[in-house]
Amino acid sequence: MSIINKNKKRKHFKKKVLFISCIHKKGIINQIMTICFSKFLEILAISTYLDVDTNIFFIRLEIQGCFQECSVLYLFRDLLSSNIKLNFQSIKKPKIILLVTKEPHCIGNLLIKNKFGHLNAEILAIISNHKILKPLVELFNIPFHYINHDTLSDEEHNSKVLKLINKFKPDYIILAKYMRILTSNFIKNYNNKIINIHHSILPSFIGARPYFRAYKRGVKIIGATAHYVNNYLDSGPIIFQDIAHIDHTYTVNDIVRVGHDVEQYVLNRALSLIFSNRVLVFQNRTIIF
Amino acid sequence: MSIINKNKKRKHFKKKVLFISCIHKKGIINQIMTICFSKFLEILAISTYLDVDTNIFFIRLEIQGCFQECSVLYLFRDLLSSNIKLNFQSIKKPKIILLVTKEPHCIGNLLIKNKFGHLNAEILAIISNHKILKPLVELFNIPFHYINHDTLSDEEHNSKVLKLINKFKPDYIILAKYMRILTSNFIKNYNNKIINIHHSILPSFIGARPYFRAYKRGVKIIGATAHYVNNYLDSGPIIFQDIAHIDHTYTVNDIVRVGHDVEQYVLNRALSLIFSNRVLVFQNRTIIF
Amino acid sequence: MSIINKNKKRKHFKKKVLFISCIHKKGIINQIMTICFSKFLEILAISTYLDVDTNIFFIRLEIQGCFQECSVLYLFRDLLSSNIKLNFQSIKKPKIILLVTKEPHCIGNLLIKNKFGHLNAEILAIISNHKILKPLVELFNIPFHYINHDTLSDEEHNSKVLKLINKFKPDYIILAKYMRILTSNFIKNYNNKIINIHHSILPSFIGARPYFRAYKRGVKIIGATAHYVNNYLDSGPIIFQDIAHIDHTYTVNDIVRVGHDVEQYVLNRALSLIFSNRVLVFQNRTIIF
Amino acid sequence: MSIINKNKKRKHFKKKVLFISCIHKKGIINQIMTICFSKFLEILAISTYLDVDTNIFFIRLEIQGCFQECSVLYLFRDLLSSNIKLNFQSIKKPKIILLVTKEPHCIGNLLIKNKFGHLNAEILAIISNHKILKPLVELFNIPFHYINHDTLSDEEHNSKVLKLINKFKPDYIILAKYMRILTSNFIKNYNNKIINIHHSILPSFIGARPYFRAYKRGVKIIGATAHYVNNYLDSGPIIFQDIAHIDHTYTVNDIVRVGHDVEQYVLNRALSLIFSNRVLVFQNRTIIF
Repeated sequence: MSIINKNKKRKHFKKKVLFISCIHKKGIINQIMTICFSKFLEILAISTYLDVDTNIFFIRLEIQGCFQECSVLYLFRDLLSSNIKLNFQSIKKPKIILLVTKEPHCIGNLLIKNKFGHLNAEILAIISNHKILKPLVELFNIPFHYINHDTLSDEEHNSKVLKLINKFKPDYIILAKYMRILTSNFIKNYNNKIINIHHSILPSFIGARPYFRAYKRGVKIIGATAHYVNNYLDSGPIIFQDIAHIDHTYTVNDIVRVGHDVEQYVLNRALSLIFSNRVLVFQNRTIIF
Repeated sequence: MSIINKNKKRKHFKKKVLFISCIHKKGIINQIMTICFSKFLEILAISTYLDVDTNIFFIRLEIQGCFQECSVLYLFRDLLSSNIKLNFQSIKKPKIILLVTKEPHCIGNLLIKNKFGHLNAEILAIISNHKILKPLVELFNIPFHYINHDTLSDEEHNSKVLKLINKFKPDYIILAKYMRILTSNFIKNYNNKIINIHHSILPSFIGARPYFRAYKRGVKIIGATAHYVNNYLDSGPIIFQDIAHIDHTYTVNDIVRVGHDVEQYVLNRALSLIFSNRVLVFQNRTIIF
Repeated sequence: MSIINKNKKRKHFKKKVLFISCIHKKGIINQIMTICFSKFLEILAISTYLDVDTNIFFIRLEIQGCFQECSVLYLFRDLLSSNIKLNFQSIKKPKIILLVTKEPHCIGNLLIKNKFGHLNAEILAIISNHKILKPLVELFNIPFHYINHDTLSDEEHNSKVLKLINKFKPDYIILAKYMRILTSNFIKNYNNKIINIHHSILPSFIGARPYFRAYKRGVKIIGATAHYVNNYLDSGPIIFQDIAHIDHTYTVNDIVRVGHDVEQYVLNRALSLIFSNRVLVFQNRTIIF
Repeated sequence: MSIINKNKKRKHFKKKVLFISCIHKKGIINQIMTICFSKFLEILAISTYLDVDTNIFFIRLEIQGCFQECSVLYLFRDLLSSNIKLNFQSIKKPKIILLVTKEPHCIGNLLIKNKFGHLNAEILAIISNHKILKPLVELFNIPFHYINHDTLSDEEHNSKVLKLINKFKPDYIILAKYMRILTSNFIKNYNNKIINIHHSILPSFIGARPYFRAYKRGVKIIGATAHYVNNYLDSGPIIFQDIAHIDHTYTVNDIVRVGHDVEQYVLNRALSLIFSNRVLVFQNRTIIF
């Protein structure tokens, strides 16, 4: 009896985004449509993409209906292939955790946006390995958690932060200038859910002090990159990048100042895309529908 | 007997892009799919867009099958609404006519691309109201037609040019710095088929001498706009725009020089989009799938 | 005796930026140097610019020495021409007043920067014709002055705001999204001292609701312009402009959101230039040394 | 008697750009001015820059007068320091040699510009290690020299090309997509006189196939870099860089196509700067006055 109730509960009327990726085959879109029809799903929006190099097919569907996710997934899996990846996302304000270290510009910008209802997400908490941003965060009445890393190994610190995050069950973790490296265990727990802002036009200047190295190299453009975090430093799937022109009169400090403004801008644009369920990760790239 | 043959001839296996736009209604994508299924069309690619302001729905379909265009169109028209617009495009290299006046940079760039097979279109002819570019064009063995406007009224000149163009039955007419205004009759004959490159970030500096006016206004960025031509000067649907940063040291000549490079670039990017059947015109805007 | 003291006081060792503009004539740089030498001025930095169109010559000098400004100016005026304009600026953190209305993004960004010492200016006060930003401003312990405009004529409101500003003797007034038009009397009092951020790539979309009009026009790039305020709406000398690429999927709200980020960025870059004494106004343009 | 004549010949009225760089010291600008005065030089334009990190001072002077270069240089060297670098440049159309391999877009663009007098330089010859561009170049009546590298070692090929170039005594050598590495001996002969266009936002994607690697990395912006050639691959002083936004729908071929347009644009802007004597090389950076 309880099982039936549970199933009934799960099979209610809902609106979801469904991403499918699998090996392309003839008639694939027609087959996907047929499954949707068989489950009485109304299709609200649809976009397809074929990666000709790998012959991998991608589809983003906004669907509406009275369905059990697992039974829909089962049908697709059965019909399409064993390599299929399916990914339901909810069309609602995501819940996020922000990780920061010392720099106020990205977090400050998000706090202002949040205070005036312009963020399109709910900030559950802000976690930092330093106390310096506590007074700023508390001005905005957001919970600030300080987890000191001084006496802990990297593993221990990561695990403490992860444990705290797990309590909140966030949809996304935003590294808004978090100057610590995440362990692979941490990343595995939030695969394609962790977004970092790096202060260079990746893949240039991976790692520490990119602005200083940009200055030394004498570049004429600097930039920032928002990307998902994977196990390789600054090497995850890129979501958004943009740049600013500079010239020889810019000292390292000038570059940092302009760079901060570009970072804010790039992070904001990437979060807009993610929070509207438009981004799909494929290998080391993003498909942005 | 001849009728049957004709029909048979028309109902052969083909690959087309179909754009549909109409008032949105519940279940519209499902209905469109159902029609495709009833005609045994394989859907190769699909993208939808809903303009929330106007409640107009757009879909781009790449379809393949053995069908008569008119009978497919008939079904859609019947099912969807009286306001529906349907537009089949062929997936093949388009045939184009270039109109130019005196400036060599856009035409020169397209001629070089064409010579090395990088244009993705077939240049049928180049028409000009001046002789100055004839030697350049003839280096590349493209037919050059000179239609003097000195002794003709605007109407007469337009009509002469139109008459010549009609012989070629081009898919698109590219105004690669054509410094003449087209009559509304001319435009009506090639509705959403005429692409112009204007040397400003429209809607700023509509009309003559935009670079000089940009200089006088002291702007810090200049740019170019590729747009479809409609009946209002420099006011048609915009396809692509881009910019260059300038500073006070740029004389009008410097601005012109940089501007020419931006014009080439913007025209190229717009033509790439059009030649790959990705652009749909809606009111005064473009939907770029 | 008091006069001598006063003179002595004024003739102390100092560091200043001097801008000179006048009709160009042969040997002008040599003459300017000669004057500097005669006053024992050490030249720390120097840049010249000749506007070939108007034959107006510009020079920016960073000088150091023990001098009376008036006597230096007197010599230049005497030697060069009656059309000369001379402008001493102090090399120090400028004092600024911010004027705002309802939107938090520009002011929020400046408040965060200021809190962490990244602004390179001192905010004396924030003045608004609405109360809505008061709580935000007060989080940062900056004086907030509310001057209601409901019961006042434009002239009266402007004069009240001006009166308050005059008390502070600011070096610059920043309109960080101030949605009121300044009277010519107001502007005259702070000629080339008032900086506005306008949310379009001027001269496109002068006036109200530029983002809405950009959306309606179907532009593919939006942008922002930081400019000095003169007597004509959104028509003063431009300091900095930048853009963001958008596409048809951006609703007006999406454009506004991206636009806000561009506005912040453009205002920041313009203020950096101004606060480092690099901007000279000439007619309706800026020379940025 | 012949010596006197020779000296007289060298000491005629001329207009030159003089770059000086040396360790900064108090009063340096005043001292430089004093030397100019002592030689009766009229200063037409002047710009200074101090690199605060290294304490190196830079000045660009446009001077006019009746002088022997060596005696002016002697005075500066004597007064300023042993570390001084002095560099006279002529204000006139520079003579250039273009080196190419197989790709037509950069060379084509320069040939079109040159044909219509928009290049601001004189093309002496075009040299290639392939025959493929010969027909294109000959359309424009520019001498084309083919130096096959198949049967030669790198050293031998470089030395043959260098020998040919030396006959022309060019001011600059432009590598307009020259896919060969220059020997250090070659570079030494034309130190800071060789300009390359690389198809990435350096320092990302140094070396071969940058577009393919950009595609694989899933970047959202691509770009090009014009730089002086030094002994390290793609690592010389950067002159100009710019970018284009791309998305996941761009295949490698699409990226190449857009990239070619960006390359042309970036090379053009860099050459404009160089041909107007505005670029000074300092360590691995460029000062652009």
